[in-house]
Amino acid sequence: MKLYDLELSGNCYKVRLLAALAGIPLDIVAVDFMAGEHKKPPLIDLNPWGEIPILVDGDVVLRDSQAILVYLAAKYAGETWLPKDPAGMATVVQWLSTSANEVQNGPGAARLVDKFGFALDKADTLRRAARILPLIEAHLARHAWLALDRPTIADCAVMPYVALAPEGGVLLADFPNIRQWIARIKALPGFVAMPGV
Amino acid sequence: MKLYDLELSGNCYKVRLLAALAGIPLDIVAVDFMAGEHKKPPLIDLNPWGEIPILVDGDVVLRDSQAILVYLAAKYAGETWLPKDPAGMATVVQWLSTSANEVQNGPGAARLVDKFGFALDKADTLRRAARILPLIEAHLARHAWLALDRPTIADCAVMPYVALAPEGGVLLADFPNIRQWIARIKALPGFVAMPGV
Repeated sequence: MKLYDLELSGNCYKVRLLAALAGIPLDIVAVDFMAGEHKKPPLIDLNPWGEIPILVDGDVVLRDSQAILVYLAAKYAGETWLPKDPAGMATVVQWLSTSANEVQNGPGAARLVDKFGFALDKADTLRRAARILPLIEAHLARHAWLALDRPTIADCAVMPYVALAPEGGVLLADFPNIRQWIARIKALPGFVAMPGV
Repeated sequence: MKLYDLELSGNCYKVRLLAALAGIPLDIVAVDFMAGEHKKPPLIDLNPWGEIPILVDGDVVLRDSQAILVYLAAKYAGETWLPKDPAGMATVVQWLSTSANEVQNGPGAARLVDKFGFALDKADTLRRAARILPLIEAHLARHAWLALDRPTIADCAVMPYVALAPEGGVLLADFPNIRQWIARIKALPGFVAMPGV
């Protein structure tokens, strides 16, 4: 099973993190991001979005880090990381949306500006970060993990760009619950880091 | 089962659409959006995000339209609208991310500016719309439905803010495959419309 990957991508790291925590072997294929390899054939044919990660498992080709987390959890990790009961599954999916929208366009995008020079509106990314981080902080005042009473793919999806927020100039000093939650994830058996986390 | 709802919200309409197509009864509770009812108790306690829709089904309380679609499909609609096999489920989830991010922040946000006077960067919303609509158009050149060989919650999640795009000044004239896909959805048994669709 191939993961087209960039070490510095938080979206790719989400997948490597779940795979490490759940013991799922991945064949990591490094993509030359700076050369735009992901925007040319053959990768653009695997993912017309022109983004990584991309997962290829036999005939299955998936774009989108959240979708890849769902696939890996459902196929290889049983219900531990993604429950099958409708309420539990939907509670996790709430956070997959938060990851894809508020976290990606907030702290994730702020980092793209500062670290990779993306021509995005930095003030807009900071406004979005200033909205979502206090919501996550307040949630974690009452919960050890985002979705359920154990770590799930919700935590794998949201943590990377939250932990990387300081690389976009978004500090976590005022968010002790978030820092403790990141520490809890780092203490899980099998945890792997990435640069900046 | 209560849906806290706004008739003019595409996110709320996603839920009403699936419920209508799949024959799931909903008790619609109209929220006074202009008065900010969703940003005050008791609704802010149900969803700290300060957004609608919110679904309440007994003890289950869910924010986020994508998560609500997953819940309704998994609990009440069987595998027709959301398959249980990992590849099928993940293929659908790809489009839930597209809905939460690219569609919401593109055509969805352009409409918020034009129709509701939201103080967002209109040019940014148009740039995002100009990226995602051609990707959807190209996908629909090869597929009748977004995720699988039948309508799923992927279509319910993505269609509303694509069909409403003209209300944000984003025209669909150059996207015949999208217009035909919208027409296919409108022809499904049980389809319900919303103003602008």
